[in-house]
Amino acid sequence: MDGRMSVDVIDIVDPDDPRVDDFRDLNSVDRRPDLPVLPGGRPGRGLVVAEGVLVVQRMIASRFTPHAFLGVDKRLDELADDLAQPTIEGLPFYRATAEVMAEIVGFHLNRGVLGVARRPERLTVDDVVAQARTVVVLEGVNDHENIGSIFRNAAGLAVDAVVFGRGCADPLYRRAVRVSMGHALLVPFAAAENWPGDLHDLRDRGFTVVSLTPDADAVPLADAVGADRVAFMVGAEGPGLSETAMRAGDVRARIPMARGTDSLNVATAAAISFYARVAR
Amino acid sequence: MDGRMSVDVIDIVDPDDPRVDDFRDLNSVDRRPDLPVLPGGRPGRGLVVAEGVLVVQRMIASRFTPHAFLGVDKRLDELADDLAQPTIEGLPFYRATAEVMAEIVGFHLNRGVLGVARRPERLTVDDVVAQARTVVVLEGVNDHENIGSIFRNAAGLAVDAVVFGRGCADPLYRRAVRVSMGHALLVPFAAAENWPGDLHDLRDRGFTVVSLTPDADAVPLADAVGADRVAFMVGAEGPGLSETAMRAGDVRARIPMARGTDSLNVATAAAISFYARVAR
Repeated sequence: MDGRMSVDVIDIVDPDDPRVDDFRDLNSVDRRPDLPVLPGGRPGRGLVVAEGVLVVQRMIASRFTPHAFLGVDKRLDELADDLAQPTIEGLPFYRATAEVMAEIVGFHLNRGVLGVARRPERLTVDDVVAQARTVVVLEGVNDHENIGSIFRNAAGLAVDAVVFGRGCADPLYRRAVRVSMGHALLVPFAAAENWPGDLHDLRDRGFTVVSLTPDADAVPLADAVGADRVAFMVGAEGPGLSETAMRAGDVRARIPMARGTDSLNVATAAAISFYARVAR
Repeated sequence: MDGRMSVDVIDIVDPDDPRVDDFRDLNSVDRRPDLPVLPGGRPGRGLVVAEGVLVVQRMIASRFTPHAFLGVDKRLDELADDLAQPTIEGLPFYRATAEVMAEIVGFHLNRGVLGVARRPERLTVDDVVAQARTVVVLEGVNDHENIGSIFRNAAGLAVDAVVFGRGCADPLYRRAVRVSMGHALLVPFAAAENWPGDLHDLRDRGFTVVSLTPDADAVPLADAVGADRVAFMVGAEGPGLSETAMRAGDVRARIPMARGTDSLNVATAAAISFYARVAR
């Protein structure tokens, strides 16, 4: 154990040790710890799981403060500097062999280290857009990988917040967090409480709501990105944005040459719109 | 059976029927039919597998003419128009239940239909760039999903050809073809025979070779996309382009705001460069 670390390293030799229950059965359909707590519905535990050195580092730096870690010795070493943060002082780092860890999580986890956090209080749309210049609004994006990619692209291309409209998947699902490279924990997000009513609120705050569409009669994207505050709105591949959402926007914009709703992945289309704004 | 179809519908009831051997064990590490034939190396069969209605349609429209199909009755119906093409007249469509099909391919295939083709003669770099205005050159992109996405983005954003430099994965691996939405079969591609020598040939042909890099001293992407003929060159996430390849290019360009080699996925970075060119 490295003297710099402020975590409490605890060796786990029995995969059934209840102290590592928060890391158990990560791929289980109904027992996985990252299922959200739904009011009156499925009794998920609502934990957030970070996997791999980079994502664990980002979790430590985020408002999703982990309450425990599980990992192999090699990753403990690699995280030494991060585990010296005062915010995580005294927390348990459960150290196990790769074999014991595989028995706990239910599969061989190549990334070798996990952090787990409870979900902090949800942010509101007001919270996350208050200081934002550029936001992205999603409707019907129900694929965790796409949501993860959108967070990664948002972080890389100067988007300040993500707003979830109707029909989106959980951004704190393990796969979404992993694909986001941990940016789902860092880029502020909130779920719209009124849909599409919250879009009117965005407009009242001075955002130009730009709906991405493949329609040929929409304006070219580059002509729609120059406002002081911009909210890009994207829908799922296939159905695209609902008419209701589209009507609540200000401008319909298209990516030149991208014909048909299946021509670009939704996260790719979003990334292109973010780029069009930073490059303007 | 629909009278329009020109294929020969054959019912398969025994999963061990040798007539469907080309569709067998699709996920097997060493028996899967899409492993390439390597000279003196692993004795792959070099078949190309299309899965799902859309990708099978694109395979039929491509130079990868299928020699057989396997699918459930519902997909046979959905493909009726495509299966009436004269190019595939008389070919077998092996019809099976979902259960028998699962036993053949080794898992439940939700998309319900497969086409299989032999690899046609490889195209050369000269072949694929001769008429091209915009091409993308990949180095070290060894992830099938990224390669598939790059083909999809190329098709959606007016890129005429893909050139594979050193260290890339096989674009005809089943996962790459699926993620490409079949565009790996439609967008012409070739492997460089000399690396980075073929980059000099591209320059001799009048291409401006634009290397994507996160380096702050590179020019903004939008300033590097205006030449008559452009070859975008991208490397794998993490290592990025080799110095050798970078030196053989004309211009080093960066995506504004995208800091660090992990800030954008390689297929996303490529898509942004394609967009920057169509939007110029």
